[in-house]
Amino acid sequence: MVIMTTTEAAPAPGQPAGLTRIPPALNAAALEHYAATYGRSVLELDRALAAAPGPDGLIDLTHGDTRAFLPPAAAAADFDDAVTENTEAYTAYRGSAALRAGLAPRLAGLLGRPVDPGAELIITPGTQGGLFAALSALVSPGDVVALPDPEYFMSERILAYLGATAHRLPVSSDSRGLLSIASDALDTAAAAGARLLVLSHPNNPTGGVYDPAAARALAGFVTGHDMLAVVDQLYCRLIFDGADYVHLSAQPGMAERTVTLAGPSKTESMSGYRVGAAVGPAPVIDAMERVLSLAALRTAGYGQQVLRHWMDGDAAWLADRTAAHQALRDELVGRLRAIPGVTVAPPAGSSYVFPDVSGAPGGGPDDHAVAVALKAAGVLVSPGYQFGPAGRGRFRINFSQDAGRLALACDRIEAVLRG
Amino acid sequence: MVIMTTTEAAPAPGQPAGLTRIPPALNAAALEHYAATYGRSVLELDRALAAAPGPDGLIDLTHGDTRAFLPPAAAAADFDDAVTENTEAYTAYRGSAALRAGLAPRLAGLLGRPVDPGAELIITPGTQGGLFAALSALVSPGDVVALPDPEYFMSERILAYLGATAHRLPVSSDSRGLLSIASDALDTAAAAGARLLVLSHPNNPTGGVYDPAAARALAGFVTGHDMLAVVDQLYCRLIFDGADYVHLSAQPGMAERTVTLAGPSKTESMSGYRVGAAVGPAPVIDAMERVLSLAALRTAGYGQQVLRHWMDGDAAWLADRTAAHQALRDELVGRLRAIPGVTVAPPAGSSYVFPDVSGAPGGGPDDHAVAVALKAAGVLVSPGYQFGPAGRGRFRINFSQDAGRLALACDRIEAVLRG
Repeated sequence: MVIMTTTEAAPAPGQPAGLTRIPPALNAAALEHYAATYGRSVLELDRALAAAPGPDGLIDLTHGDTRAFLPPAAAAADFDDAVTENTEAYTAYRGSAALRAGLAPRLAGLLGRPVDPGAELIITPGTQGGLFAALSALVSPGDVVALPDPEYFMSERILAYLGATAHRLPVSSDSRGLLSIASDALDTAAAAGARLLVLSHPNNPTGGVYDPAAARALAGFVTGHDMLAVVDQLYCRLIFDGADYVHLSAQPGMAERTVTLAGPSKTESMSGYRVGAAVGPAPVIDAMERVLSLAALRTAGYGQQVLRHWMDGDAAWLADRTAAHQALRDELVGRLRAIPGVTVAPPAGSSYVFPDVSGAPGGGPDDHAVAVALKAAGVLVSPGYQFGPAGRGRFRINFSQDAGRLALACDRIEAVLRG
Repeated sequence: MVIMTTTEAAPAPGQPAGLTRIPPALNAAALEHYAATYGRSVLELDRALAAAPGPDGLIDLTHGDTRAFLPPAAAAADFDDAVTENTEAYTAYRGSAALRAGLAPRLAGLLGRPVDPGAELIITPGTQGGLFAALSALVSPGDVVALPDPEYFMSERILAYLGATAHRLPVSSDSRGLLSIASDALDTAAAAGARLLVLSHPNNPTGGVYDPAAARALAGFVTGHDMLAVVDQLYCRLIFDGADYVHLSAQPGMAERTVTLAGPSKTESMSGYRVGAAVGPAPVIDAMERVLSLAALRTAGYGQQVLRHWMDGDAAWLADRTAAHQALRDELVGRLRAIPGVTVAPPAGSSYVFPDVSGAPGGGPDDHAVAVALKAAGVLVSPGYQFGPAGRGRFRINFSQDAGRLALACDRIEAVLRG
């Protein structure tokens, strides 16, 4: 199943023979099967976009701007204290015991389930580090894993790296941005042998929140088939319009079979510290710690301590940050909808929108080509292919930006899409 | 080849079926074959030592004390500047371009070879993160990899995780602590199919430096067999007695086939930041970046910046730090040699000693049992099995400690070993 051609090259004369020999697992992560639609693997598409020309003053909308939305002041203070105290340079691989003890009640409050700080919690190098550790702890070669379409761009790559196959679940969105997955799609996944469900919630890249009934149906699907679940809740604190957000691990029978990933990289703009947390059943947290010990020993000892005051009495701060993002969302969705041929569901959470520009005069179904054209016009976006087959003709924008720069980016996007 | 018994357990009644299913790669990293000597896998031995009782005031000699030897002041200042500037929260996966451009000349000076900051350098989550990325970039299932015995405890675990087999190379030490590997051992490894050599230099756990002639012979072995090499030089700046240290990647034909790992975690006591650097051929750095993107996206953006002034005109500081460690080494080696039945080679570099206590009345060949006894007496050491078959009857001490605490630890060690 591993196609070696795209990333293998014959060594140059005199070059060591082993230099261009890519291990099969790493090669699989290139996602060669996207060549059937796009003519190139996902790795090649990414490299082509990175190499495509862009002007000075390129506006990067692939991630949030941590200068437009600053981290809480406590983060830097907690880090400095950790350096000064200098007692936690070497922690348990799963993270500082004192930190976990302080954090567990706040995570329990967030997730609506008990969290044992010793057995059920691990500090990870960002939420990506938690995702890699969780999947590496749970997935064996040949496994089939249920994955929404679209879904976070790294999930399918990691599954392919681990020798597993992603069984995609089409996601539907209603007019309020509330998501659901059809029950026959779930049944098909179960029949295909899926014993693990991996999903982001809110969904990355759409920002959609699962409708409460749909979320409960997902939990019922997992428990009913004796499956496990990995739920990336990186954006679960940034929810708009008071939408009803259902925590999957708090549903009946789910706590003992769900790994929940969380972290301060997005809502709190603390991505530069590269810290996250995962809550799950003790045997899985044990296995995740074994993975993390191999990959990096531990999350940076000083860096872990920026979680000391994460989610600690910050309701007013969170309300302000949410309102600011909701205003940006409304402005952006309005701008996008004014472009002929563009459709977009308003995200119920996160700082992402995922418009469909396939019908725009300057858009079309080839989202890679659209992203290259947008880059030439001064805007960098995340093209739809990165998130799965459902990304065809779409791109993702992270609107956690300065309002003026986002407006300028919208001008450029509109100019391209109007053709 | 994967034995599942030691880490598998039947699910408890009502427990999800998938919870105790350990993926074969992770299970392989438990190193079951050590059970032939010790009765348990390395994972089980580690867990038994972690669970063994120790008194209040346990002195942990498994790592250096970052309060006894502080990080350079520039590290905290550079980190604070990075947080204040807040322009590098999101960097290229291989690290900040500006940081790499500044660091490359200093790495070139250290290693004695040119370093292209764009193509040949990646910033890693500690040197462990660099080792994991390098081996994951170079090793395929079924590979045979040449590995000194003894060697850094994670190397064989990562190789097993990747489905490879470690072919051990016995290491000899002369009376000055200078190491060599017999040529017939290298020939046997080549005949066994080894196409990659992985080693630490100075050696972890012995602190030995390869004799210059032996180092050149190692380089000749690698080039002569068209092999690749991964060299962990985490301790290459902490060299005693003016010993002649040979950088392998500077030897003829080696730059294009060697990945060199370095970082400030040890000599500079900056382990709490979890940052390192790797220099190697462009195709391997590319592949390492792909691995890192899966495992953690990137090294923490702010954390990378603590390398801004690493090795920047610190010759006087380094001379002081080296002298302080050399004094601790001399005191410790003297104390250990005074214990009947203990033999130890003085390390020519690093902050490790690796005494053989198999002949001591309170010692013996079972280094796990000795470590459990030492823990009960108030000293935590790294038992020899962690480093390979040659660790039988030995343990590792990291002597980067407060002198008074190290002396107290020596009292406790002596009391146990005298029996």
